[in-house]
Amino acid sequence: METTLLTNKENLIENNVSHELDSLFKPKAIAIIGASSKELSIGNVIIKNLVHYGFTGKIYPINPKEPEIRGIKAYPTIFDVPDDIDLAHVIIPSKFVPQIIEDCGKKGIKSVIINSAGFSEMGEEGMALQNAFLANAKKYGVRIFGPNCQGIINCDPEYNAYCDFTFTFPKPGSISIAALSGGVGAFIMQSLFDLNVGMRMYASNGNACDISLPEVVNYYGEDEGTKAIILYTEGFHNPKEFMDVAKIVSKKKPILAMKAGRTEEGAKAAASHTGSLAGVDIATELIFEKTGILSFNNEEEMCQAAMAFSTQPIPKGNRVGIITNTGGPAVIATDELVSAGMQIPALSERAKNILKETMLPEATIGNPIDVVATGGGKHFRSALDVLMEEETIDSIYINFVTAPFTDTDDVARNIVEVNQLKRKPIICNFMTNMSLERFQVTSKILQDGGVPCYGFPTTAAKALGVLYKYHVLQSRNIGEPTQFGDVNKVSTENILLNAKKENKEFLNSSQVYNILSNYKIPIADYRIVNNINDAISAAEAIGFPIVLKAESESLVHKSDAGGVVVNIKNAKELSESIEKMEKKFAVDDLQFLIQKFLPGGRELIAGVSIKKDLGHLILFGLGGIYVEVLKDVVFKIAQVTELEATEMLTSIKGFKLLDGIRGQDGVDKQSIVNIIQRISQLVTDFPEIQEMDLNPIIGFKDKVIAVDARIKI
Amino acid sequence: METTLLTNKENLIENNVSHELDSLFKPKAIAIIGASSKELSIGNVIIKNLVHYGFTGKIYPINPKEPEIRGIKAYPTIFDVPDDIDLAHVIIPSKFVPQIIEDCGKKGIKSVIINSAGFSEMGEEGMALQNAFLANAKKYGVRIFGPNCQGIINCDPEYNAYCDFTFTFPKPGSISIAALSGGVGAFIMQSLFDLNVGMRMYASNGNACDISLPEVVNYYGEDEGTKAIILYTEGFHNPKEFMDVAKIVSKKKPILAMKAGRTEEGAKAAASHTGSLAGVDIATELIFEKTGILSFNNEEEMCQAAMAFSTQPIPKGNRVGIITNTGGPAVIATDELVSAGMQIPALSERAKNILKETMLPEATIGNPIDVVATGGGKHFRSALDVLMEEETIDSIYINFVTAPFTDTDDVARNIVEVNQLKRKPIICNFMTNMSLERFQVTSKILQDGGVPCYGFPTTAAKALGVLYKYHVLQSRNIGEPTQFGDVNKVSTENILLNAKKENKEFLNSSQVYNILSNYKIPIADYRIVNNINDAISAAEAIGFPIVLKAESESLVHKSDAGGVVVNIKNAKELSESIEKMEKKFAVDDLQFLIQKFLPGGRELIAGVSIKKDLGHLILFGLGGIYVEVLKDVVFKIAQVTELEATEMLTSIKGFKLLDGIRGQDGVDKQSIVNIIQRISQLVTDFPEIQEMDLNPIIGFKDKVIAVDARIKI
Repeated sequence: METTLLTNKENLIENNVSHELDSLFKPKAIAIIGASSKELSIGNVIIKNLVHYGFTGKIYPINPKEPEIRGIKAYPTIFDVPDDIDLAHVIIPSKFVPQIIEDCGKKGIKSVIINSAGFSEMGEEGMALQNAFLANAKKYGVRIFGPNCQGIINCDPEYNAYCDFTFTFPKPGSISIAALSGGVGAFIMQSLFDLNVGMRMYASNGNACDISLPEVVNYYGEDEGTKAIILYTEGFHNPKEFMDVAKIVSKKKPILAMKAGRTEEGAKAAASHTGSLAGVDIATELIFEKTGILSFNNEEEMCQAAMAFSTQPIPKGNRVGIITNTGGPAVIATDELVSAGMQIPALSERAKNILKETMLPEATIGNPIDVVATGGGKHFRSALDVLMEEETIDSIYINFVTAPFTDTDDVARNIVEVNQLKRKPIICNFMTNMSLERFQVTSKILQDGGVPCYGFPTTAAKALGVLYKYHVLQSRNIGEPTQFGDVNKVSTENILLNAKKENKEFLNSSQVYNILSNYKIPIADYRIVNNINDAISAAEAIGFPIVLKAESESLVHKSDAGGVVVNIKNAKELSESIEKMEKKFAVDDLQFLIQKFLPGGRELIAGVSIKKDLGHLILFGLGGIYVEVLKDVVFKIAQVTELEATEMLTSIKGFKLLDGIRGQDGVDKQSIVNIIQRISQLVTDFPEIQEMDLNPIIGFKDKVIAVDARIKI
Repeated sequence: METTLLTNKENLIENNVSHELDSLFKPKAIAIIGASSKELSIGNVIIKNLVHYGFTGKIYPINPKEPEIRGIKAYPTIFDVPDDIDLAHVIIPSKFVPQIIEDCGKKGIKSVIINSAGFSEMGEEGMALQNAFLANAKKYGVRIFGPNCQGIINCDPEYNAYCDFTFTFPKPGSISIAALSGGVGAFIMQSLFDLNVGMRMYASNGNACDISLPEVVNYYGEDEGTKAIILYTEGFHNPKEFMDVAKIVSKKKPILAMKAGRTEEGAKAAASHTGSLAGVDIATELIFEKTGILSFNNEEEMCQAAMAFSTQPIPKGNRVGIITNTGGPAVIATDELVSAGMQIPALSERAKNILKETMLPEATIGNPIDVVATGGGKHFRSALDVLMEEETIDSIYINFVTAPFTDTDDVARNIVEVNQLKRKPIICNFMTNMSLERFQVTSKILQDGGVPCYGFPTTAAKALGVLYKYHVLQSRNIGEPTQFGDVNKVSTENILLNAKKENKEFLNSSQVYNILSNYKIPIADYRIVNNINDAISAAEAIGFPIVLKAESESLVHKSDAGGVVVNIKNAKELSESIEKMEKKFAVDDLQFLIQKFLPGGRELIAGVSIKKDLGHLILFGLGGIYVEVLKDVVFKIAQVTELEATEMLTSIKGFKLLDGIRGQDGVDKQSIVNIIQRISQLVTDFPEIQEMDLNPIIGFKDKVIAVDARIKI
């Protein structure tokens, strides 16, 4: 559905130049093509919003009949506008849009927001119109936002560019929002507004036919005024483009993201087959994971976390100091903080000695520090100062219940003073009765002082947990994929070329095993032979016991059909088995695979499946019933680095089995890490590989060896 | 720490008579002993609160010096009060409290709230004072609430009894709160107030030395005005008493509960040993599960769910109809509803035909029904009417974004009209800009009309999910424990008596196996013998192959010490093994256990551990590495019913293994269900059993047999 000006965008990302979008987000003169005097029409509301929000540039309503709209001089066409225009809204019937884009190009307009609908979302005819205006846009270098979209908002007071028909007017701040769904984008904006969190920029780009979500994210990434990015999507047009951008941006600032539509696809993920284990939803989570994005299933929690990011620094570790003036909520907060992977370390003797001097006698000196309900501003202040000095504390959580008998404003002022030093992040669970005016004052002191305030201990603790999670993501350097130099790419290419020539879907054993050998993926020693005598020689060369497998293009499920015999101990057993197979499978191309039998060891599985637009997913897990019953497998998007391959091992539930347990041997983990990386390199070198299974791989203490494999192209 | 008037309470619960607490919750005349003219002192604030909240009864400040307090005539002592008093607050130093309780008894006061601190929480001296006033209370039949507590509130306009020093004044409603921690209780009350949810009763009983949390819950259960109960606790003084009450009350109305302190104890649960697998936190969750309580880890979600219960009926099933006027939030809601186990079924042809007539042309006729942003009151109304008639719809979820170009009040009025019929529960995600007055009006229409409104789709969907979960809990009848009549209690009693006489901690094999036989728990055929000849005879009687185990009081870890030999196939092997053991274990009491060897089958584990104050926990799981690495076990509190035993089987992750997989046989599940129930009966009959392990139990297609067992008394 999407037609993109790829060349432009690729340059953009590569050169890290994004000023091209300045005409969209930082316009100096805006034409509203399709301006209307009709109240509540989009062509009227946008002008109203621009004026209401105090747009600092010029507004040119374009309307063939009206001399002025909302008191602003209107022009019949853009060519009648005497000045330069950098941005145009287009709100006219879709059939006129291609011509208007041509006009915009001629007028030198750099960006156009097409609010009108009636394009790719409306079938073939609409698609043709979309392609037509895109061709004109390309001709003149005009960038298109939309169509069928809300628009953008830039809250920077230098611009106050409210190029949107929504009806929330955010205060300027540091959170920027990108949303494909305008409905969700608008209510996220509203939610931040309700939380008194300032916004930086907003973009909801509908069909996203040219300027893409990744481009917007990239722009936000380079915008110094944006401290954190909120992203809402129901899918990715081009996951690879998104990943390229996201992995760069997420290192610079947190991206908080939510993808809806997770359950329908989650169902697909339940299927037990390797290929179908990886549903779309898994892929989204994998994209978020690989690129260091903070993933949410709950948009309320996402907005609450954004509030914390908007004012607080990122903690340097997981150690929290808790200050409370009430008992129970500190217990609740501790539960949640610990659940989020954080610690509540004991205080140093130095700290305790200071607190013994400064706290009320009934206070509890520890972590949490309970300043008690009668504690006032100076008690909170001392606790805050002490925690700021503690080397073993990375962030501060406060429970502040407004007891009527304390000077709550003084408490608030002290919290604010320490908060404004921004040495360590501070989160406040502020429990009060906002229907009382005196506590509204206290609340305002905290809010104006940039203290993120929540109404529940769990909610506040969760927000701090997200700050910490970003610290973890930022600290995680997955590195670059290892490029193994000892692989034989040429031979592999030839094998695949031959297979393609033969129109094969599945490679035969010889081809599969040769490819694995080419990529130094260990496979149990094998020979392919045509008769009993050769089989016996092969078995003797390999050494008994062996496994015998019947080989033929016509044999698909050879194990079910009796085409596999394991643990053959001598030549006699081998002869008998071959004779039986020859009788059973009366096919011309029957061959026999003689393979070393490897008893014992731990059954493992590795594999690859392909995900449209995303590329290969690499799978690793425990084999046998573990994969079938317990689904103890993990996926990552190729290419995987050594760190990622290692994470795959450690993130399966049965990880301890790899270390050995109950007197059983562990397995050679470094070899598994190598195999995973080599598989990743193989499918990256040969994207035509659609599916690949190493099932099982047998893990021993000192080696890991695949004993069966399958490749589909 | 707790001293309870158990006799009273037991009668109470048994006879379901709770009017004894009427003097506490429905007082007609209240004395404030320790009334004070000092502003912000508790003895002043309580009088202020009673007056402010419009207490309908009489208030008698008791103060030896003041003639009046806050304009109300005061009395030097309670004996000077001319009228009857049913409730007294006590706010005097702890040392005077025992005498005052005696006085209260003499005056005929039925309940006393002791706000004062300085009792059991302060060590021995305080404990002595507490025991002293409790003795006096018992003498006169005075019931004590507290000490060291906030008090109670009854918002019923017939009473308006604000017997508490908190500072939130709830509107009357149907949610009652019980909280051991006053801090958390107060902020939950405040949170409901902020959500505009009315409250019925409130109780925060501090040390809870007499009137217990379960008694309060029982009282709420019988109070017709209470529709739902919120419970906050950090632990249970007497879990059994709580369970007895909770399982009755939870059938009548939902109990929403949160227990803080879950993580510290969660750590204990991580230990891999059977006995230590069941930490305190597991126990709380088990209590909640067994008694049908809605458990929360997040107090904000608990309050939001309470809002739904306060006005909505319970859905009769899991099928949701969605009405939306915006796309994205319906996707988000669907995700959450499905995650909560609900379905979004297709609409009937009848419904679709009606909607085709009544909806705007651009509306989407389906489930969700998208009435689109321009949809007005009549469109919402038609959608609501249709869903109310749909037999396949049990509840209704609404996304209502207030588009400025629609008559949002009319939409709200239509939702309210349908809501007030209360035929099916309705939940509304109301997305608006509350800083605009017109939408405040819309919001008020919804609120006054009893429509639970949330600000986020996930939040609203979660609340509906909890309503549904209560339906599930209410529908779940665990039944009564099976009493197997074929057990031999007398023999078991004798075995245990002998073991006690011998001061044994662990029973010997003969004792263990005899007890299992007494309770018809199948154990692999065995004999205990003293020498090789008897061993061979025994083995021949049982049939080779057999297992040989050395038996001696001094042998604890016999398997590690080489005291177990499996798969002995003939008399020769047996003789050799016994000779080896005789050499290795040169102890006087050496005997030999000859047991049938059972190869193959699925390794299972069952066991019992004891939890202080709670009784026995029954464990079931997959044995071997499943229990050690994957912790695939489940616990229930004894006694378990047949349904619960069956649930134990189906709730392990590897449940499919019991059905058989990959050509392997399944196991005889009914036999496992029986074994679990028989273990439960055994430890219920003999509470002196501290620990018991059947490890492993081997499961076959047609039988399930324990092959090793251990009992600790």
